[in-house]
Amino acid sequence: MHPTIKKLRKIMEEKQTNLCIAADVVLAEEVLELAEMLGEKICIFKTHVDILRDFTPEFTEKLSEIARRKNFLIFEDRKFADIGNTVSLQFSEGIYKIAEWADFINAHTIVGEGIIQGLQKVNKKSGLILLAQMTPKGNLFSESYALKTVEMAKAYPDFVVGFIGSSDRPEALAKIRAEAGEDLLILTPGIQLSSGGDDLGQTYNTPEKAIGLGADVIIVGRGITGAENPVAEAEKYREAGWVARKD
Amino acid sequence: MHPTIKKLRKIMEEKQTNLCIAADVVLAEEVLELAEMLGEKICIFKTHVDILRDFTPEFTEKLSEIARRKNFLIFEDRKFADIGNTVSLQFSEGIYKIAEWADFINAHTIVGEGIIQGLQKVNKKSGLILLAQMTPKGNLFSESYALKTVEMAKAYPDFVVGFIGSSDRPEALAKIRAEAGEDLLILTPGIQLSSGGDDLGQTYNTPEKAIGLGADVIIVGRGITGAENPVAEAEKYREAGWVARKD
Repeated sequence: MHPTIKKLRKIMEEKQTNLCIAADVVLAEEVLELAEMLGEKICIFKTHVDILRDFTPEFTEKLSEIARRKNFLIFEDRKFADIGNTVSLQFSEGIYKIAEWADFINAHTIVGEGIIQGLQKVNKKSGLILLAQMTPKGNLFSESYALKTVEMAKAYPDFVVGFIGSSDRPEALAKIRAEAGEDLLILTPGIQLSSGGDDLGQTYNTPEKAIGLGADVIIVGRGITGAENPVAEAEKYREAGWVARKD
Repeated sequence: MHPTIKKLRKIMEEKQTNLCIAADVVLAEEVLELAEMLGEKICIFKTHVDILRDFTPEFTEKLSEIARRKNFLIFEDRKFADIGNTVSLQFSEGIYKIAEWADFINAHTIVGEGIIQGLQKVNKKSGLILLAQMTPKGNLFSESYALKTVEMAKAYPDFVVGFIGSSDRPEALAKIRAEAGEDLLILTPGIQLSSGGDDLGQTYNTPEKAIGLGADVIIVGRGITGAENPVAEAEKYREAGWVARKD
Protein backbone atom coordinates (compact mmCIF):
# COMPACT_ATOMS: atom_id res chain seq x y z
CA MET A 1 0.00 0.00 0.00
CA HIS A 2 1.25 3.52 -0.87
CA PRO A 3 2.50 5.27 2.32
CA THR A 4 0.12 8.22 1.80
CA ILE A 5 -2.87 5.86 1.63
CA LYS A 6 -1.66 4.19 4.82
CA LYS A 7 -1.28 7.56 6.53
CA LEU A 8 -4.76 8.65 5.48
CA ARG A 9 -6.43 5.42 6.60
CA LYS A 10 -4.76 5.76 10.00
CA ILE A 11 -6.03 9.35 10.37
CA MET A 12 -9.53 8.29 9.31
CA GLU A 13 -9.67 5.55 11.94
CA GLU A 14 -8.20 7.71 14.70
CA LYS A 15 -10.54 10.63 14.05
CA GLN A 16 -13.50 8.58 12.82
CA THR A 17 -13.98 10.73 9.77
CA ASN A 18 -14.06 10.37 5.99
CA LEU A 19 -14.77 14.06 5.47
CA CYS A 20 -12.69 16.29 3.19
CA ILE A 21 -13.36 20.03 3.26
CA ALA A 22 -13.11 22.07 0.06
CA ALA A 23 -11.88 25.53 1.08
CA ASP A 24 -12.97 27.61 -1.89
CA VAL A 25 -12.35 31.07 -0.45
CA VAL A 26 -10.08 33.76 -1.88
CA LEU A 27 -8.22 35.05 1.19
CA ALA A 28 -5.35 33.13 2.80
CA GLU A 29 -6.52 34.16 6.27
CA GLU A 30 -9.97 32.69 5.62
CA VAL A 31 -8.48 29.40 4.46
CA LEU A 32 -6.35 29.19 7.61
CA GLU A 33 -9.39 30.03 9.76
CA LEU A 34 -11.35 27.20 8.12
CA ALA A 35 -8.45 24.79 8.75
CA GLU A 36 -8.26 25.81 12.43
CA MET A 37 -12.03 25.71 12.85
CA LEU A 38 -12.75 22.44 11.03
CA GLY A 39 -9.45 20.58 11.47
CA GLU A 40 -10.78 18.15 14.08
CA LYS A 41 -13.64 17.01 11.86
CA ILE A 42 -11.72 16.17 8.70
CA CYS A 43 -9.16 13.77 7.26
CA ILE A 44 -8.27 15.93 4.22
CA PHE A 45 -8.25 19.68 3.63
CA LYS A 46 -8.65 20.57 -0.07
CA THR A 47 -7.20 23.81 -1.42
CA HIS A 48 -7.15 25.86 -4.64
CA VAL A 49 -4.08 28.01 -3.99
CA ASP A 50 -4.47 29.73 -7.35
CA ILE A 51 -7.67 31.50 -6.28
CA LEU A 52 -5.96 33.21 -3.30
CA ARG A 53 -5.50 36.95 -3.76
CA ASP A 54 -2.77 37.08 -1.13
CA PHE A 55 -0.86 33.82 -1.51
CA THR A 56 2.63 33.77 0.02
CA PRO A 57 4.96 30.83 0.78
CA GLU A 58 4.20 31.53 4.48
CA PHE A 59 0.60 30.51 3.80
CA THR A 60 1.56 26.92 2.97
CA GLU A 61 3.90 26.81 5.96
CA LYS A 62 1.08 27.92 8.26
CA LEU A 63 -1.39 25.50 6.69
CA SER A 64 1.11 22.64 7.02
CA GLU A 65 1.62 23.50 10.68
CA ILE A 66 -2.15 23.35 11.31
CA ALA A 67 -2.31 20.06 9.39
CA ARG A 68 0.37 18.50 11.62
CA ARG A 69 -1.28 19.80 14.79
CA LYS A 70 -4.85 18.82 13.83
CA ASN A 71 -3.80 15.61 12.07
CA PHE A 72 -5.14 15.97 8.52
CA LEU A 73 -3.61 15.81 5.03
CA ILE A 74 -3.56 18.57 2.40
CA PHE A 75 -4.93 18.07 -1.12
CA GLU A 76 -4.13 20.76 -3.68
CA ASP A 77 -6.94 20.40 -6.22
CA ARG A 78 -4.92 21.74 -9.18
CA LYS A 79 -6.42 19.35 -11.75
CA PHE A 80 -3.26 19.24 -13.86
CA ALA A 81 -4.28 18.87 -17.49
CA ASP A 82 -1.30 19.52 -19.75
CA ILE A 83 1.58 17.65 -21.42
CA GLY A 84 4.24 16.02 -19.23
CA ASN A 85 6.88 18.71 -19.67
CA THR A 86 4.46 21.50 -18.70
CA VAL A 87 2.89 19.81 -15.68
CA SER A 88 6.31 18.97 -14.26
CA LEU A 89 7.01 22.73 -14.25
CA GLN A 90 3.53 23.64 -12.92
CA PHE A 91 3.94 21.13 -10.09
CA SER A 92 7.50 21.95 -8.99
CA GLU A 93 8.08 25.53 -10.14
CA GLY A 94 6.26 28.87 -10.08
CA ILE A 95 5.20 30.70 -6.98
CA TYR A 96 3.20 27.84 -5.48
CA LYS A 97 5.82 25.05 -5.52
CA ILE A 98 3.02 22.54 -4.90
CA ALA A 99 5.49 19.63 -4.84
CA GLU A 100 6.94 20.99 -1.58
CA TRP A 101 3.80 20.78 0.53
CA ALA A 102 0.82 18.88 -0.97
CA ASP A 103 0.06 15.37 0.35
CA PHE A 104 -2.33 14.86 -2.55
CA ILE A 105 -2.55 16.38 -6.03
CA ASN A 106 -4.80 15.42 -8.94
CA ALA A 107 -4.69 15.23 -12.73
CA HIS A 108 -6.89 14.62 -15.77
CA THR A 109 -5.98 11.59 -17.88
CA ILE A 110 -7.38 12.97 -21.17
CA VAL A 111 -3.80 14.01 -22.04
CA GLY A 112 -2.50 10.43 -21.74
CA GLU A 113 0.05 8.75 -19.46
CA GLY A 114 2.69 11.42 -20.08
CA ILE A 115 0.95 13.58 -17.48
CA ILE A 116 1.57 10.96 -14.79
CA GLN A 117 5.22 10.59 -15.86
CA GLY A 118 5.72 14.37 -15.95
CA LEU A 119 4.37 14.81 -12.43
CA GLN A 120 6.20 11.78 -11.05
CA LYS A 121 9.52 13.03 -12.45
CA VAL A 122 9.51 15.97 -10.01
CA ASN A 123 7.43 14.42 -7.22
CA LYS A 124 8.74 14.65 -3.66
CA LYS A 125 5.98 13.65 -1.25
CA SER A 126 2.59 13.76 -3.00
CA GLY A 127 0.20 10.98 -3.93
CA LEU A 128 -1.58 11.46 -7.27
CA ILE A 129 -5.36 11.23 -7.60
CA LEU A 130 -6.71 10.72 -11.13
CA LEU A 131 -10.01 12.21 -12.28
CA ALA A 132 -12.10 9.22 -13.34
CA GLN A 133 -15.47 11.02 -13.11
CA MET A 134 -16.84 14.46 -12.25
CA THR A 135 -20.31 15.64 -11.32
CA PRO A 136 -21.28 18.62 -13.50
CA LYS A 137 -24.14 18.35 -15.97
CA GLY A 138 -23.22 17.31 -19.51
CA ASN A 139 -19.68 16.22 -18.62
CA LEU A 140 -17.86 13.91 -21.06
CA PHE A 141 -16.54 11.33 -18.56
CA SER A 142 -17.75 8.07 -20.12
CA GLU A 143 -17.56 4.70 -18.39
CA SER A 144 -14.83 3.58 -20.77
CA TYR A 145 -12.89 6.79 -20.02
CA ALA A 146 -13.16 6.03 -16.30
CA LEU A 147 -11.96 2.46 -16.76
CA LYS A 148 -9.02 3.55 -18.93
CA THR A 149 -8.13 5.93 -16.12
CA VAL A 150 -8.13 3.04 -13.62
CA GLU A 151 -5.86 1.09 -15.97
CA MET A 152 -3.40 4.01 -16.15
CA ALA A 153 -3.44 4.29 -12.34
CA LYS A 154 -2.47 0.66 -11.90
CA ALA A 155 0.63 1.14 -14.02
CA TYR A 156 1.96 3.68 -11.46
CA PRO A 157 1.39 2.12 -8.01
CA ASP A 158 4.27 4.08 -6.47
CA PHE A 159 2.60 7.38 -7.31
CA VAL A 160 -1.14 7.06 -8.00
CA VAL A 161 -3.18 6.69 -4.80
CA GLY A 162 -6.75 6.87 -6.07
CA PHE A 163 -9.52 8.55 -8.03
CA ILE A 164 -12.13 11.23 -8.06
CA GLY A 165 -15.42 9.39 -8.69
CA SER A 166 -18.99 10.62 -8.91
CA SER A 167 -22.06 9.14 -7.27
CA ASP A 168 -24.09 10.56 -10.19
CA ARG A 169 -23.18 7.51 -12.26
CA PRO A 170 -23.52 4.67 -9.76
CA GLU A 171 -22.90 1.81 -12.20
CA ALA A 172 -19.67 3.27 -13.52
CA LEU A 173 -18.57 4.12 -9.97
CA ALA A 174 -19.17 0.52 -8.88
CA LYS A 175 -16.99 -0.67 -11.78
CA ILE A 176 -14.25 1.77 -10.83
CA ARG A 177 -14.41 0.41 -7.27
CA ALA A 178 -14.21 -3.17 -8.50
CA GLU A 179 -11.36 -2.54 -10.96
CA ALA A 180 -9.38 -0.32 -8.58
CA GLY A 181 -9.25 -2.93 -5.84
CA GLU A 182 -9.56 -2.19 -2.14
CA ASP A 183 -6.39 -0.22 -1.53
CA LEU A 184 -6.79 2.66 -3.97
CA LEU A 185 -8.91 5.54 -2.69
CA ILE A 186 -12.09 6.95 -4.20
CA LEU A 187 -12.91 10.55 -3.26
CA THR A 188 -16.34 11.86 -4.17
CA PRO A 189 -17.09 15.59 -4.57
CA GLY A 190 -20.42 17.31 -5.05
CA ILE A 191 -21.74 16.17 -1.65
CA GLN A 192 -24.49 17.97 0.29
CA LEU A 193 -26.89 16.70 2.96
CA SER A 194 -29.70 18.07 0.81
CA SER A 195 -29.23 17.18 -2.86
CA GLY A 196 -29.62 19.79 -5.65
CA GLY A 197 -27.27 21.96 -7.71
CA ASP A 198 -25.83 25.42 -8.43
CA ASP A 199 -26.43 27.66 -11.48
CA LEU A 200 -23.17 26.61 -13.17
CA GLY A 201 -24.06 22.96 -13.76
CA GLN A 202 -22.74 21.48 -10.50
CA THR A 203 -24.98 18.73 -9.03
CA TYR A 204 -25.01 17.30 -5.49
CA ASN A 205 -25.45 13.91 -3.84
CA THR A 206 -25.73 12.87 -0.19
CA PRO A 207 -22.95 11.32 1.97
CA GLU A 208 -24.96 8.07 2.36
CA LYS A 209 -25.27 7.62 -1.39
CA ALA A 210 -21.59 8.26 -2.09
CA ILE A 211 -20.25 6.04 0.71
CA GLY A 212 -22.82 3.37 -0.12
CA LEU A 213 -21.45 3.27 -3.66
CA GLY A 214 -17.91 2.66 -2.48
CA ALA A 215 -16.42 6.10 -1.92
CA ASP A 216 -13.75 6.29 0.81
CA VAL A 217 -13.83 10.05 1.26
CA ILE A 218 -16.61 12.62 0.74
CA ILE A 219 -15.67 16.13 -0.38
CA VAL A 220 -17.91 18.92 0.90
CA GLY A 221 -17.52 22.59 0.07
CA ARG A 222 -20.23 25.22 0.21
CA GLY A 223 -22.52 22.88 2.17
CA ILE A 224 -20.23 23.45 5.17
CA THR A 225 -18.21 26.60 4.47
CA GLY A 226 -21.37 28.50 3.50
CA ALA A 227 -23.32 27.35 6.59
CA GLU A 228 -24.15 29.65 9.48
CA ASN A 229 -22.33 27.34 11.88
CA PRO A 230 -19.64 25.52 9.86
CA VAL A 231 -18.39 23.45 12.81
CA ALA A 232 -21.86 22.08 13.65
CA GLU A 233 -22.48 21.45 9.95
CA ALA A 234 -19.12 19.68 9.53
CA GLU A 235 -20.02 17.43 12.49
CA LYS A 236 -23.28 16.46 10.73
CA TYR A 237 -21.38 15.51 7.57
CA ARG A 238 -18.66 13.70 9.52
CA GLU A 239 -21.25 11.61 11.30
CA ALA A 240 -23.38 10.96 8.21
CA GLY A 241 -20.29 9.88 6.26
CA TRP A 242 -18.88 7.75 9.05
CA VAL A 243 -22.04 5.83 9.93
CA ALA A 244 -22.67 5.16 6.21
CA ARG A 245 -19.58 2.92 6.12
CA LYS A 246 -20.47 -0.72 5.79
CA ASP A 247 -17.63 -2.26 7.76
CA MET B 1 -17.07 37.30 -36.27
CA HIS B 2 -15.76 37.56 -32.68
CA PRO B 3 -13.72 40.80 -32.30
CA THR B 4 -10.66 38.87 -31.04
CA ILE B 5 -10.68 36.66 -34.14
CA LYS B 6 -10.94 39.78 -36.32
CA LYS B 7 -8.04 41.38 -34.44
CA LEU B 8 -5.89 38.26 -34.83
CA ARG B 9 -6.63 37.88 -38.55
CA LYS B 10 -5.64 41.51 -39.10
CA ILE B 11 -2.34 41.01 -37.26
CA MET B 12 -1.66 37.83 -39.23
CA GLU B 13 -2.16 39.59 -42.57
CA GLU B 14 -0.16 42.68 -41.58
CA LYS B 15 2.79 40.69 -40.26
CA GLN B 16 2.43 37.72 -42.62
CA THR B 17 2.67 35.21 -39.82
CA ASN B 18 0.64 32.40 -38.34
CA LEU B 19 3.28 31.60 -35.74
CA CYS B 20 2.55 31.39 -32.01
CA ILE B 21 5.50 31.08 -29.64
CA ALA B 22 5.19 28.96 -26.50
CA ALA B 23 7.36 30.62 -23.84
CA ASP B 24 7.94 27.74 -21.44
CA VAL B 25 10.65 29.30 -19.29
CA VAL B 26 10.53 29.86 -15.52
CA LEU B 27 11.89 33.40 -15.11
CA ALA B 28 9.79 36.49 -15.90
CA GLU B 29 12.81 38.27 -17.36
CA GLU B 30 13.39 35.40 -19.82
CA VAL B 31 9.75 35.50 -20.96
CA LEU B 32 9.98 39.25 -21.57
CA GLU B 33 13.26 38.78 -23.47
CA LEU B 34 11.62 36.18 -25.70
CA ALA B 35 8.70 38.55 -26.35
CA GLU B 36 11.08 41.39 -27.27
CA MET B 37 13.28 39.15 -29.38
CA LEU B 38 10.58 37.24 -31.27
CA GLY B 39 7.70 39.77 -31.22
CA GLU B 40 8.05 40.72 -34.91
CA LYS B 41 7.77 37.12 -36.07
CA ILE B 42 4.62 36.10 -34.24
CA CYS B 43 0.88 36.72 -34.07
CA ILE B 44 0.39 35.15 -30.61
CA PHE B 45 2.62 34.81 -27.56
CA LYS B 46 1.67 31.85 -25.37
CA THR B 47 2.40 31.93 -21.64
CA HIS B 48 2.21 29.66 -18.58
CA VAL B 49 2.31 32.25 -15.81
CA ASP B 50 2.05 29.57 -13.15
CA ILE B 51 5.53 28.23 -13.93
CA LEU B 52 7.20 31.61 -13.25
CA ARG B 53 9.28 31.67 -10.06
CA ASP B 54 9.15 35.45 -9.88
CA PHE B 55 5.69 36.41 -11.17
CA THR B 56 4.48 39.89 -10.21
CA PRO B 57 1.59 41.96 -11.60
CA GLU B 58 4.28 44.17 -13.21
CA PHE B 59 5.22 41.21 -15.38
CA THR B 60 1.85 41.16 -17.17
CA GLU B 61 1.95 44.95 -17.53
CA LYS B 62 5.36 44.73 -19.18
CA LEU B 63 4.31 41.86 -21.41
CA SER B 64 1.15 43.74 -22.46
CA GLU B 65 3.24 46.79 -23.32
CA ILE B 66 5.51 44.68 -25.56
CA ALA B 67 2.42 43.08 -27.14
CA ARG B 68 0.99 46.51 -28.04
CA ARG B 69 4.32 47.73 -29.40
CA LYS B 70 5.14 44.58 -31.39
CA ASN B 71 1.52 43.93 -32.38
CA PHE B 72 0.77 40.43 -31.09
CA LEU B 73 -1.88 38.90 -28.81
CA ILE B 74 -1.30 37.07 -25.51
CA PHE B 75 -2.59 33.54 -24.88
CA GLU B 76 -2.45 32.27 -21.30
CA ASP B 77 -2.38 28.49 -21.72
CA ARG B 78 -4.02 27.73 -18.37
CA LYS B 79 -6.07 24.76 -19.62
CA PHE B 80 -8.91 25.36 -17.16
CA ALA B 81 -10.36 21.98 -16.22
CA ASP B 82 -12.67 22.38 -13.22
CA ILE B 83 -16.34 23.06 -12.41
CA GLY B 84 -17.83 26.45 -13.35
CA ASN B 85 -17.67 27.97 -9.87
CA THR B 86 -13.99 27.09 -9.46
CA VAL B 87 -12.78 28.21 -12.90
CA SER B 88 -14.54 31.55 -12.52
CA LEU B 89 -12.36 32.13 -9.42
CA GLN B 90 -9.21 30.77 -11.07
CA PHE B 91 -9.74 33.06 -14.07
CA SER B 92 -10.61 36.30 -12.26
CA GLU B 93 -9.05 35.95 -8.81
CA GLY B 94 -5.78 34.84 -7.28
CA ILE B 95 -2.43 36.43 -7.91
CA TYR B 96 -2.54 36.10 -11.69
CA LYS B 97 -5.89 37.79 -12.44
CA ILE B 98 -5.76 36.27 -15.94
CA ALA B 99 -9.06 37.93 -16.92
CA GLU B 100 -7.36 41.34 -16.76
CA TRP B 101 -4.74 40.75 -19.44
CA ALA B 102 -5.13 37.57 -21.56
CA ASP B 103 -6.46 37.94 -25.13
CA PHE B 104 -6.90 34.16 -25.29
CA ILE B 105 -7.43 31.52 -22.63
CA ASN B 106 -8.26 27.83 -23.04
CA ALA B 107 -10.30 25.11 -21.34
CA HIS B 108 -10.98 21.38 -21.41
CA THR B 109 -14.57 20.37 -22.19
CA ILE B 110 -14.47 17.06 -20.30
CA VAL B 111 -16.16 18.86 -17.39
CA GLY B 112 -19.16 19.88 -19.53
CA GLU B 113 -20.57 23.26 -20.59
CA GLY B 114 -20.52 24.65 -17.05
CA ILE B 115 -16.84 25.41 -17.54
CA ILE B 116 -17.65 27.75 -20.45
CA GLN B 117 -20.41 29.44 -18.43
CA GLY B 118 -18.19 29.81 -15.37
CA LEU B 119 -15.42 31.48 -17.37
CA GLN B 120 -17.81 33.68 -19.36
CA LYS B 121 -19.46 34.93 -16.16
CA VAL B 122 -16.27 36.78 -15.19
CA ASN B 123 -14.83 37.39 -18.65
CA LYS B 124 -13.66 40.88 -19.54
CA LYS B 125 -11.64 40.74 -22.75
CA SER B 126 -10.57 37.16 -23.49
CA GLY B 127 -11.61 34.79 -26.25
CA LEU B 128 -11.92 31.15 -25.18
CA ILE B 129 -10.15 28.33 -27.03
CA LEU B 130 -11.47 24.81 -26.37
CA LEU B 131 -9.21 21.76 -26.35
CA ALA B 132 -10.60 19.49 -29.06
CA GLN B 133 -7.43 17.42 -29.47
CA MET B 134 -3.93 17.21 -28.05
CA THR B 135 -0.76 15.57 -29.31
CA PRO B 136 0.75 13.38 -26.54
CA LYS B 137 0.94 9.61 -26.97
CA GLY B 138 -1.99 7.62 -25.60
CA ASN B 139 -4.26 10.65 -25.12
CA LEU B 140 -8.01 10.03 -24.77
CA PHE B 141 -9.29 12.70 -27.19
CA SER B 142 -11.56 10.64 -29.44
CA GLU B 143 -13.12 11.96 -32.63
CA SER B 144 -16.54 12.03 -30.99
CA TYR B 145 -15.09 13.99 -28.06
CA ALA B 146 -13.63 16.51 -30.51
CA LEU B 147 -16.94 16.91 -32.33
CA LYS B 148 -18.87 17.34 -29.06
CA THR B 149 -16.39 20.07 -28.21
CA VAL B 150 -17.13 21.83 -31.52
CA GLU B 151 -20.84 21.60 -30.73
CA MET B 152 -20.30 23.21 -27.31
CA ALA B 153 -18.24 25.98 -28.92
CA LYS B 154 -21.01 26.88 -31.33
CA ALA B 155 -23.43 27.44 -28.46
CA TYR B 156 -21.20 30.28 -27.17
CA PRO B 157 -20.25 32.39 -30.23
CA ASP B 158 -19.76 35.52 -28.12
CA PHE B 159 -17.02 33.85 -26.12
CA VAL B 160 -15.51 30.79 -27.84
CA VAL B 161 -13.09 31.74 -30.63
CA GLY B 162 -11.62 28.39 -31.62
CA PHE B 163 -9.91 25.12 -30.80
CA ILE B 164 -6.66 23.40 -30.10
CA GLY B 165 -6.43 20.67 -32.76
CA SER B 166 -3.73 18.11 -33.49
CA SER B 167 -2.25 17.18 -36.84
CA ASP B 168 -1.58 13.72 -35.41
CA ARG B 169 -5.16 12.72 -36.22
CA PRO B 170 -5.68 14.27 -39.65
CA GLU B 171 -9.15 12.82 -40.28
CA ALA B 172 -10.58 14.08 -37.02
CA LEU B 173 -8.89 17.46 -37.53
CA ALA B 174 -10.46 17.76 -41.00
CA LYS B 175 -13.88 17.08 -39.44
CA ILE B 176 -13.28 19.70 -36.76
CA ARG B 177 -12.37 22.18 -39.51
CA ALA B 178 -15.52 21.30 -41.47
CA GLU B 179 -17.84 21.45 -38.45
CA ALA B 180 -16.28 24.59 -36.99
CA GLY B 181 -16.80 26.64 -40.13
CA GLU B 182 -14.32 29.15 -41.51
CA ASP B 183 -14.45 31.80 -38.80
CA LEU B 184 -13.44 29.81 -35.73
CA LEU B 185 -9.71 29.38 -35.25
CA ILE B 186 -7.72 26.15 -35.05
CA LEU B 187 -4.37 26.37 -33.27
CA THR B 188 -2.05 23.40 -33.54
CA PRO B 189 0.71 22.71 -30.98
CA GLY B 190 3.48 20.14 -31.11
CA ILE B 191 5.07 21.70 -34.21
CA GLN B 192 8.74 21.30 -35.14
CA LEU B 193 10.51 21.60 -38.50
CA SER B 194 11.95 18.15 -37.84
CA SER B 195 9.31 15.73 -36.53
CA GLY B 196 9.94 13.49 -33.47
CA GLY B 197 9.12 13.64 -29.75
CA ASP B 198 10.34 14.17 -26.18
CA ASP B 199 10.71 11.59 -23.42
CA LEU B 200 7.38 12.52 -21.76
CA GLY B 201 5.12 11.39 -24.62
CA GLN B 202 4.97 14.64 -26.60
CA THR B 203 5.03 14.13 -30.41
CA TYR B 204 5.80 16.67 -33.15
CA ASN B 205 4.53 17.52 -36.64
CA THR B 206 5.75 19.98 -39.28
CA PRO B 207 4.20 23.40 -40.07
CA GLU B 208 3.29 22.27 -43.61
CA LYS B 209 1.34 19.29 -42.32
CA ALA B 210 -0.59 21.29 -39.73
CA ILE B 211 -1.49 24.20 -42.02
CA GLY B 212 -2.29 21.79 -44.85
CA LEU B 213 -4.82 20.11 -42.57
CA GLY B 214 -6.62 23.36 -41.84
CA ALA B 215 -4.83 24.87 -38.85
CA ASP B 216 -4.83 28.69 -38.71
CA VAL B 217 -2.01 29.05 -36.21
CA ILE B 218 1.02 26.85 -35.45
CA ILE B 219 2.34 26.75 -31.89
CA VAL B 220 6.09 26.23 -31.55
CA GLY B 221 7.98 25.99 -28.27
CA ARG B 222 11.31 24.30 -27.72
CA GLY B 223 11.94 24.14 -31.51
CA ILE B 224 12.51 27.91 -31.39
CA THR B 225 13.21 28.84 -27.77
CA GLY B 226 15.76 26.03 -27.46
CA ALA B 227 17.56 26.93 -30.71
CA GLU B 228 20.99 28.55 -30.79
CA ASN B 229 19.58 31.50 -32.73
CA PRO B 230 15.88 31.79 -31.80
CA VAL B 231 15.22 34.76 -34.12
CA ALA B 232 16.60 32.98 -37.20
CA GLU B 233 14.72 29.84 -36.21
CA ALA B 234 11.45 31.76 -35.69
CA GLU B 235 11.85 33.25 -39.16
CA LYS B 236 12.15 29.73 -40.63
CA TYR B 237 8.91 28.68 -38.89
CA ARG B 238 7.14 31.92 -39.83
CA GLU B 239 8.02 31.42 -43.47
CA ALA B 240 7.23 27.68 -43.51
CA GLY B 241 3.86 28.33 -41.86
CA TRP B 242 2.98 31.28 -44.06
CA VAL B 243 3.84 29.71 -47.42
CA ALA B 244 1.93 26.57 -46.45
CA ARG B 245 -1.34 28.54 -46.55
CA LYS B 246 -3.46 27.57 -49.50
CA ASP B 247 -5.11 30.93 -50.16
